[in-house]
Amino acid sequence: MLCRLLPRTAFRSIRNFSCCSRNLLSSTDLLLPRHLGPSDEQAAKMLKVCGYNTLDELTNKTVPSSIRISRNVTDQKEPRGEADVLEELKKAASLNRCDIKSYIGAGYYNTHVPNVILRNMLENPAWYTSYTPYQGEVSQGRLQMLLNYQTMIADLTGLPMSNASLLDEGTAAAEAVYMCLGMSDGKRKKFLISSDVHPQTIGVCKTRASGWGVTIEVMHHSQFDVSAKDVCGVLVQYPATDGTVDDFRELTKKVQSFGTKMCVATDLLALTMLAPPGEWGADIALGSNQRFGLPLGYGGPSAGFFATQEKHKRKMPGRIIGMSKDTRGKPALRMAMQTREQHIRREKATSNICTAQALLANMSVSYAIYHGPKQLTRIAQKARAAAKCFSAALTQMGYDLPNAKNEHYFDTVRIDNVPADTCLSACLKAGYNIRKLTDTCVCVAFDETTTEKDVQALVSAFAQAKNADNVTITVPTDVSVPDIFTRQTSFLTHSIFNSYHSETDMMRYLYSLQMRDLSLATAMIPLGSCTMKANTAAVMIPITWPEFANMHPFVPLDQAKGYNTMITQMEKDLCSITGFAGCTLMPNAGSQGEYTGLKVIQAYHASRGDTKRTICLIPHSAHGTNPASAVLSGHSVVEVACDTKGEVDVKDLIAKTNKYKEQLSCLMITYPSTHGVFEDKIKEIVSIIHAAGGQVYMDGANMNAQVGLTSPGDIGADVCHLNLHKTFAIPHGGGGPGVGPICVAKHLVEFLPTHPVIKTGGSRGIGNVSASPFGSASILPISWVYIKGLGSYGLKKATQMAILNANYMMKKLAPHYKVLYTGKYGQCAHEFIIDIRPIKAQCGISEEDIAKRLMDYNFHAPTMSFPVPGTLMIEPTESEPLYEIDRFIEAMISIRNEIKEVESGKMHKTNNCLKNAPHPADVVLADKWDRPYSREKAAYPLSYLRLNKFWPYCTRVDNVFGDRNLQCVCPPVKKL
Amino acid sequence: MLCRLLPRTAFRSIRNFSCCSRNLLSSTDLLLPRHLGPSDEQAAKMLKVCGYNTLDELTNKTVPSSIRISRNVTDQKEPRGEADVLEELKKAASLNRCDIKSYIGAGYYNTHVPNVILRNMLENPAWYTSYTPYQGEVSQGRLQMLLNYQTMIADLTGLPMSNASLLDEGTAAAEAVYMCLGMSDGKRKKFLISSDVHPQTIGVCKTRASGWGVTIEVMHHSQFDVSAKDVCGVLVQYPATDGTVDDFRELTKKVQSFGTKMCVATDLLALTMLAPPGEWGADIALGSNQRFGLPLGYGGPSAGFFATQEKHKRKMPGRIIGMSKDTRGKPALRMAMQTREQHIRREKATSNICTAQALLANMSVSYAIYHGPKQLTRIAQKARAAAKCFSAALTQMGYDLPNAKNEHYFDTVRIDNVPADTCLSACLKAGYNIRKLTDTCVCVAFDETTTEKDVQALVSAFAQAKNADNVTITVPTDVSVPDIFTRQTSFLTHSIFNSYHSETDMMRYLYSLQMRDLSLATAMIPLGSCTMKANTAAVMIPITWPEFANMHPFVPLDQAKGYNTMITQMEKDLCSITGFAGCTLMPNAGSQGEYTGLKVIQAYHASRGDTKRTICLIPHSAHGTNPASAVLSGHSVVEVACDTKGEVDVKDLIAKTNKYKEQLSCLMITYPSTHGVFEDKIKEIVSIIHAAGGQVYMDGANMNAQVGLTSPGDIGADVCHLNLHKTFAIPHGGGGPGVGPICVAKHLVEFLPTHPVIKTGGSRGIGNVSASPFGSASILPISWVYIKGLGSYGLKKATQMAILNANYMMKKLAPHYKVLYTGKYGQCAHEFIIDIRPIKAQCGISEEDIAKRLMDYNFHAPTMSFPVPGTLMIEPTESEPLYEIDRFIEAMISIRNEIKEVESGKMHKTNNCLKNAPHPADVVLADKWDRPYSREKAAYPLSYLRLNKFWPYCTRVDNVFGDRNLQCVCPPVKKL
Ligand SMILES: Cc1ncc(COP(=O)(O)O)c(C=O)c1O
Ligand SMILES: Cc1ncc(COP(=O)(O)O)c(C=O)c1O
Ligand SMILES: O=C([O-])O
Repeated sequence: MLCRLLPRTAFRSIRNFSCCSRNLLSSTDLLLPRHLGPSDEQAAKMLKVCGYNTLDELTNKTVPSSIRISRNVTDQKEPRGEADVLEELKKAASLNRCDIKSYIGAGYYNTHVPNVILRNMLENPAWYTSYTPYQGEVSQGRLQMLLNYQTMIADLTGLPMSNASLLDEGTAAAEAVYMCLGMSDGKRKKFLISSDVHPQTIGVCKTRASGWGVTIEVMHHSQFDVSAKDVCGVLVQYPATDGTVDDFRELTKKVQSFGTKMCVATDLLALTMLAPPGEWGADIALGSNQRFGLPLGYGGPSAGFFATQEKHKRKMPGRIIGMSKDTRGKPALRMAMQTREQHIRREKATSNICTAQALLANMSVSYAIYHGPKQLTRIAQKARAAAKCFSAALTQMGYDLPNAKNEHYFDTVRIDNVPADTCLSACLKAGYNIRKLTDTCVCVAFDETTTEKDVQALVSAFAQAKNADNVTITVPTDVSVPDIFTRQTSFLTHSIFNSYHSETDMMRYLYSLQMRDLSLATAMIPLGSCTMKANTAAVMIPITWPEFANMHPFVPLDQAKGYNTMITQMEKDLCSITGFAGCTLMPNAGSQGEYTGLKVIQAYHASRGDTKRTICLIPHSAHGTNPASAVLSGHSVVEVACDTKGEVDVKDLIAKTNKYKEQLSCLMITYPSTHGVFEDKIKEIVSIIHAAGGQVYMDGANMNAQVGLTSPGDIGADVCHLNLHKTFAIPHGGGGPGVGPICVAKHLVEFLPTHPVIKTGGSRGIGNVSASPFGSASILPISWVYIKGLGSYGLKKATQMAILNANYMMKKLAPHYKVLYTGKYGQCAHEFIIDIRPIKAQCGISEEDIAKRLMDYNFHAPTMSFPVPGTLMIEPTESEPLYEIDRFIEAMISIRNEIKEVESGKMHKTNNCLKNAPHPADVVLADKWDRPYSREKAAYPLSYLRLNKFWPYCTRVDNVFGDRNLQCVCPPVKKL
Repeated sequence: MLCRLLPRTAFRSIRNFSCCSRNLLSSTDLLLPRHLGPSDEQAAKMLKVCGYNTLDELTNKTVPSSIRISRNVTDQKEPRGEADVLEELKKAASLNRCDIKSYIGAGYYNTHVPNVILRNMLENPAWYTSYTPYQGEVSQGRLQMLLNYQTMIADLTGLPMSNASLLDEGTAAAEAVYMCLGMSDGKRKKFLISSDVHPQTIGVCKTRASGWGVTIEVMHHSQFDVSAKDVCGVLVQYPATDGTVDDFRELTKKVQSFGTKMCVATDLLALTMLAPPGEWGADIALGSNQRFGLPLGYGGPSAGFFATQEKHKRKMPGRIIGMSKDTRGKPALRMAMQTREQHIRREKATSNICTAQALLANMSVSYAIYHGPKQLTRIAQKARAAAKCFSAALTQMGYDLPNAKNEHYFDTVRIDNVPADTCLSACLKAGYNIRKLTDTCVCVAFDETTTEKDVQALVSAFAQAKNADNVTITVPTDVSVPDIFTRQTSFLTHSIFNSYHSETDMMRYLYSLQMRDLSLATAMIPLGSCTMKANTAAVMIPITWPEFANMHPFVPLDQAKGYNTMITQMEKDLCSITGFAGCTLMPNAGSQGEYTGLKVIQAYHASRGDTKRTICLIPHSAHGTNPASAVLSGHSVVEVACDTKGEVDVKDLIAKTNKYKEQLSCLMITYPSTHGVFEDKIKEIVSIIHAAGGQVYMDGANMNAQVGLTSPGDIGADVCHLNLHKTFAIPHGGGGPGVGPICVAKHLVEFLPTHPVIKTGGSRGIGNVSASPFGSASILPISWVYIKGLGSYGLKKATQMAILNANYMMKKLAPHYKVLYTGKYGQCAHEFIIDIRPIKAQCGISEEDIAKRLMDYNFHAPTMSFPVPGTLMIEPTESEPLYEIDRFIEAMISIRNEIKEVESGKMHKTNNCLKNAPHPADVVLADKWDRPYSREKAAYPLSYLRLNKFWPYCTRVDNVFGDRNLQCVCPPVKKL
């Protein structure tokens, strides 16, 4: 062990250090080499395999020279140390005034994130690095948690069908509008919203409805014209934004009797005490899960919930998790009714939710599981007790409290006929933010974290504001609400919600679920188009700093200087990286970015009087969110063909452009293409569109192959979205959260989205597309640390390494599988497609069989049948180590050999280790084994698996059965 | 789901809320109900099973009324919310001046804890909740990491044998003294220490050596009388405490030629550049791992390393991990040479290490694995580059730098002939602490975190201190050390240290090891005497706050007000809980507390001229650390017999007391006894000892059964230690860290340990027993949050619940297994023993077979054969949920039925599922299966295992083979 001489020149050969101007006092904890998989030495070997000497050589043969850039894409060139970057961010964070407590409410409340959930879910890569559970057999843990989630929402709202979360309360409301429109077969073009609904919710509905030709009318719900035949639905809020609780039973009956749907924005905590909308007949209930243990985070991410009646279930937007069974008949979960989703139905999708809020939904239901129904009620009682003793004191002082007066409130007190600013500053002096509703009206919203001291301090502030005598509060013992509002039914009675109330119980439950899931902590997840890169601990650490976690989105801007500093820097860097002039961080996912970008394009055309431009060209290979976004934004989709090389058929593009010249709004194009190729003709394509007066929207899902080498702006596009949860290191959380900012060229900046409460966006902005002004602000530090940590040098190098990893893998697999498309010089971009159709034709083994068999080798499958049916799309990212890449290659070759055995007749055509894959432990060790292959071949096709085996939890899940027998809440417990 | 009516009185029936004065605005995130396993409702049912109506009834029949107390054991009665307690602690923490950077050195250096290790090891319950790997088959993950650790130490020191960590550098040095003494067969009674060794190391050696009759002489090593025949060993430091590097080759040869052993305190980072002690012939190398990624934490915990030559291996102190094989011949790890350890050899043990620093050792080797040899060297070069450009600048200013002058230094610069205080205050003004060595000499120690800015700021401060012109530093490019010092050999060449340098690699490596280990995240660990209670996330969170993590132990006290506030409160609470007058937090484990307590007793006797009192009475049932501590502190052990009920044989006690009346120093007694019983005669026993002029030392390992119900002070003892890592919620870390404070009665306070650098302890203190003044200060927040969170109400309730859980389990198991001992009314304390000897006699199935079979049921075994051979001692703690307790009972009954099948001949006598246990996956699914029981019976003896199975990693490990073929570093990699 002590034999070889160590070269004295160690300094020079440190992995990935051969960059930039560095000296011996430079950081030794650089993020860059930790983020990348292969070392420089390994990269050199891999390049050789690909036939190149340097990364630049490879890049030059991959990215068309016509679009290459040489500038540094951010101001800071040098890669930096983790500690150094985190220190800078900590300094910025400390500018956030988190010493001031906010009782602003308006949909955002303080909450205690239970520490057991914080540590073992939010800060645990086994939970936060996994992807949307497309492969059910290795996702049963989070599928179970999402089923729990749906059960919770169904129970609390009193409506039996819940989806697995939407992006936020605002978009959930907009989805309700769309669903009501759909239920009227598109015929009723009006939707009424009560003026008592949160302003940001109204804003999102207005922005969105414009694309569907729906008029949103806002008025107090007492003014609703209930008998109007052109109204598809109404939306009220319960409790209202000012805290008032109204009895909507009458209204519900009335509107429904005229064929209008009743939608209710509501509050999960309040529903532990208030009769739920489902019980008084509402068609749809929606809202935010934020106060169920999700950090405020300056507005997000949280999750939106959405529930509806049984009869409407097939119209429900979003993802739904359902029970089914595996091939043995054992209960197994999977995503239900996927045929409704945009990645399959494309422009006919019921909604446009791809990345949702899975991690947040899982956290919020974990909160409910940990507390259980009694403790949740106790928490509600606490918030209400605070409101009660506060209003008693204020009443005593002579304040005018309209909703407290008749007990028509839950936890939010409205105070009328006051000088609002005086009240706000008195409270601020005491260390509290409250909400100004009008110049003469304020609200105070209490919550789980409120203490007696807090209430007393606020009471004293109000005494001061009035020069009144202070009143000492008395904590009430009875906090029940008036009988008409009282919830009479139990909820969360399932054992899941009544078993895990101690920390040990909860921790073990989380770990037992985690064990069922394959995450990046286990293995590579080579999902093409998903960019499952490293989410290093360093980038994740700041999101749980209290300075970022505990800030209300509507605090005065001067209290959020830390956030603003970070956000301004982020926007600047993203503009520079994309080659654009303006940016918004508001959209909560890629799909939302697409939507926002298309609305901006529309606004631009409209500003020039070009109102006829409504056609959106979309290549055949596009992701399903593109057509869905186009439709939702009010465009008509015209598909452009692809040629045999998988590239945009320029002839067809020209033909369509000519045909729709007057109506052409834009082209949506993914670059490099969803086929994994840098198309050479991209600039030509852009010119064709521009010449026809159209705009070019670039889908940035594949930015991981562009950063530092080229950019949408340099290519000539007008807008692009970025998936920060792909390219910029935000983890996927098992299906969200995401951040889908858009960057735009100069002429579009003025149309960037604005917000009804907080000033942001363009001078002629399109309104707000999310509930919160900066979208999922609290996870932006992830991308900030990533960008600052890598520097422009590292950002580019990461791109080059992603391209190398993909090309190396392709080169090694090419002798065994047919590679579908490559670029001019035979290179792929950062991902590539292998074609399984010839194999299937030959011997019946399908891409799905290979995907499931990979699980037996400790791998998550690549993307299946997107963008081309019958194929697998493989994306290793720059973060996968050479060891893991080689392990994948070895597994794929081993599987190819297994296929050969089927081809040759050596293995049975249907009863073989591929068709029967995956193989859980209880299958391979069952006393009975009558398969024509051995147990060991089933479980340990390669020898390393004996040392380190991830066990799939079930055999192949039956999708069809599940959709036929839709079961979307936890079934009653049977004795196991 | 919406059917049952929810009782309106929810508030009253919330679990565990039936306490104290609470109102609706009280905290809803109480720690207490989260820490406890059963709810109040469940407890009521369990009490019924035990034949009681209330917890108090049970307690009254368990704890003798003569020793019951009714006072509140801490000032704060009420249980508190997690957020509330953490907020208070955060406020205290903010008093620590962590804006000041310390370059004090002296064995403590700034370091970057790699975030991937921070998150996935230090903050991950799967790593921190496990116990010492007594059961190898479910501990292969951390055993592998400890083997890696030993390999790292062996490589870096150049000495082939390393143990798996000691408590700190100071005690490691003391162990070296003891080992040298032993190697001279106890004949050479002098040990020489260079005055260049850290003062705290010298201090520990002096304190410890006094017990062995060894004289420590301190002088510069150039003054050593090398030919003296009464010197068993010498200790030098390399580099020295002032940074100087000396060439010890000559000295080593000389002392060894006279039969004296050469011990070297050294520095792991320096050894990447300096020729290691092993290469120049040292017998022993030791030091601290702190700067390998362990937070400073105001002094600890870190880990001490210890390595020696092959020929001395069987004399080496501490735990050693070794390779062996399992019953199939597959490589498997386990603790080697346990027969040397105190729990088996008792008073003949080679050392007294029970709880060590496993988690810290694992973190430090993870740091080395993550960085690899090249990057470690680069880190060393960085520290050295800082020292070099600093000294160049100071030399230019005319400062006198004795060790820099001739390049005899690594990273620590000594500056002579200066007004030390002036230098210190100039540096402090710039934001830096440096070290004052004498009034005219200071040191500056650089490290991994030092930046150019730091060096320049210090240079400027020194310019100011001298009124000299500032000098701009120049970062050197060559930082090699003089040839005579240069390391010529490579190190960490094993693939383990050259594979996991990216975050993804490292994270997966940690997860793959974690999967092999059974921790509290998986299941109950009912290890009797070990108190595996919940380590809730809330108690763990503060230890990684930078305010606690980044503080040097030798900063001026006024910079550590946060620590001091917390420490003062802790000491007060611990005194109150134990009924004593004074406390020291210095000892790093229970064993160290024992040692400290006995030294304090000695000092007390000595202060009264009672120097003949050297006999320590210890009951037969005592833990092995007791006699070992007694011997190490210079006592002679006399054993007291136990009677047939397992209790102290009072007649024998009286006889021995009378016999040794004049010499009686003390009695060491564990209470409740290690047999799990509150002996009724405890007060009588105490009186007997006191009457004879002896002191009573109470081993506090079982304090979990006392807190709030009785106390050592109330019982009449004079000293006790506490295992904060048992009773006060510090996790076990897979075998450490621990904290073993002692509390003492008033007459002993003046003898509490002092420290050579920081003022603490009694006026006639015994010196320092650990390197750091407050021991493992950075984990004290865990116990602080625990105590404040529970309040005296909760502390008592936790004790009662621990007693209930044990008694419930005992009651349910009693029909199936023979319970060995109970108290007067048939109750056990917090643990109980079942006797397997009758079963073994009947059919050959042993306690070990049951322990291993439990693994197949997803359980860690109870404590095996302690304190009684052939038994199992079961301790569920208060934190285990009823579900898990019932699951354990069910498993034990199922195993009893399996045993019956052997008894009845239905199962083979040796080839059965007990003797063959545990059953790893690859065994039960092997193509070949020729066992007389089925695969499913092997793997799934109960049906829930099909849904949630933890797989043991290997079959039973062969201990004997491993000890015969001692292999304690990673073997060369073979192709797997
Ligand atoms: C090419 C492409 N466009 C758009 C999207 C949608 O992004 P999001 O999931 O963030 O909504 C995806 C998602 O995978 C994608 O692959
Ligand atoms: C009764 C008893 N005393 C002392 C000790 C030693 O404590 P430590 O492991 O902290 O050194 C133990 C350890 O388990 C014990 O059980
Ligand atoms: O670890 C014990 O020796 O109890």
